[in-house]
Amino acid sequence: MIIVFTGTAGSGKTTITTRFGKYLAEKGYEVGYVNLDTGVKKLLYKPDIDVRKTITVEKIMKEGYGPNGAIVESYDRLMPHIDEYIAGILELKQKKDYVIIDTPGQMETFLFHEFGVKLMENLPEPLVVYLFSPEILRKLHDYCFVRFFALMIDLRLGATTIPAMNKIDTIDDLERHKKYIEDLEYLTTRLKLDPSTHGLLAYKLCTFLPEVSPPIRILYLSAKTREGFEDLETVAYEHYCTCGDLT
Amino acid sequence: MIIVFTGTAGSGKTTITTRFGKYLAEKGYEVGYVNLDTGVKKLLYKPDIDVRKTITVEKIMKEGYGPNGAIVESYDRLMPHIDEYIAGILELKQKKDYVIIDTPGQMETFLFHEFGVKLMENLPEPLVVYLFSPEILRKLHDYCFVRFFALMIDLRLGATTIPAMNKIDTIDDLERHKKYIEDLEYLTTRLKLDPSTHGLLAYKLCTFLPEVSPPIRILYLSAKTREGFEDLETVAYEHYCTCGDLT
Repeated sequence: MIIVFTGTAGSGKTTITTRFGKYLAEKGYEVGYVNLDTGVKKLLYKPDIDVRKTITVEKIMKEGYGPNGAIVESYDRLMPHIDEYIAGILELKQKKDYVIIDTPGQMETFLFHEFGVKLMENLPEPLVVYLFSPEILRKLHDYCFVRFFALMIDLRLGATTIPAMNKIDTIDDLERHKKYIEDLEYLTTRLKLDPSTHGLLAYKLCTFLPEVSPPIRILYLSAKTREGFEDLETVAYEHYCTCGDLT
Repeated sequence: MIIVFTGTAGSGKTTITTRFGKYLAEKGYEVGYVNLDTGVKKLLYKPDIDVRKTITVEKIMKEGYGPNGAIVESYDRLMPHIDEYIAGILELKQKKDYVIIDTPGQMETFLFHEFGVKLMENLPEPLVVYLFSPEILRKLHDYCFVRFFALMIDLRLGATTIPAMNKIDTIDDLERHKKYIEDLEYLTTRLKLDPSTHGLLAYKLCTFLPEVSPPIRILYLSAKTREGFEDLETVAYEHYCTCGDLT
C-alpha cells in the first residue's frame, strides 16, 4: 500500500511520516519510506528513497538562486530522473507492506510541478492524506475550503484524497471543528446567514459538496498521542480492498 | 484600485507586477508597489512597501532553518507588524491611482498563513489575479482544476479572483486552451468520455462550475508582449465600478 502525506509547509508531513511509520512497524509491518522534499534539512526517519541524493534546495541556493526559485529549480533538475524514482518506489512497494511518501515541503510544488503530477500518475492506487492544521480554520468558509481543497488535490493528482486535521493535541475544541467539517447541512445553514457575495459562494460550494464528493471519512490525527492512527490504518486498508469506497 | 497578483512560484507574479505597473505609468497613472515576498532576491520595480524591511528568508536560513521552515517562520515574524503593513497599503491607496501587490513566492503561504488571509480581509475590494502557466495544463482535468482553483482563492481570501493564463507568448495553441477553459459545455462533453472515478469527479465539478462561478472574464497575459494588459485594465476598472460583476 502506498500512503502519501501532503499539506502545506508546517502541516506536519514529516513528523506524521515518522510516527505513523513507527506505529506500523511496531505492529509488525514492513515499512518503506520515500522523501520527495529537496528542501528538508533533517529527517527523523531513514528514507529508502531520497530525492536529496540527486539535488537539494540549499545546493542550488549556493549558485545564487533565491529560496523560491531554488525550490522550483530543484524539481526541474529531478525531472530527468523521474523514471528512476518511479521505478524505485514500485520496487520498494514489492518488498514492503506499506510505502509512506513524504512530499515536497511546499504543497504547491507537489500539485503544480510536473514532477509531482507525473510521479503520482505512475503509482498504483496511492492514497493521499491531505494534512491541515486546525489553525487555518478561522471562519465558517474555511471548513468548506478544506473539504474542497481535498477534492482539488484529488482532481489534480488523480488520486483518492482524504482530508485529515493534524495536530489535534494542540486544540481543545475538536468536537466543534468536527461538527462544521462533517455536518454539511449544519455548515450550509450557518453559511446561508452570510449575505455577502463571498458568503453566497461558500454557501453554493458547500451545498454542492455532497453531490460531488465521494462519501469519505475524515481523519483527526496527532503524531504526539497517536490519536487517529488506527483510523488511518483502517482507511488505508479499505482503500486497497475496495478501490476507493471510503465511507 | 488594488490589484493583487498571486500564483505559484515561477508563475510570473513579479514580472507582471513590473511590466503592468510600467504600462499603467506610461498611461499617466500613479502606481504604488507592494512586495509581500520575503524570499525574493531582486525586484525590477521599486517597492513603496516591502516586507523584506522586516525580515527575509535568507536571514532566517542563516539561523539554521531549512528553506521551507524559513519561509513559514518569516511570515510568523511579520505577524506582529501586520497592522503597520495594512495601514501602509491603505495610505498608499489614497495617494496612488493603482496599488499593485506582489504576493509571497509560494502561493500557499499567501493562502494558508494568517498573514496573507488577515491582510486581504483588511483591504477594500482588492482584485486578485490568479496567474498560472500554460504548462500546468496537461490533461482535460487541469482546465477544470484552474477554474476551480480560482474559486478556492476567492473563497479563502474573500476577494474576487480572476484566473489569468500567463506567459502566452511561450505557446502557439492559445485558441485550443481558450476553448477548453471558457467553453464549459465543450469541456464537460469531453470529460464525460472518461469513465474513471477521477474522470467522473472532474465531470461533476465541471458541470457545477456555471452554477457556482460568478460570470467572469478570463485573462490571457504576456509580460513580454503586453498582450492582455488592456483587458486587465478594463477588468480592474469594471471591478471597482460595478463591485464584482466581471462578465
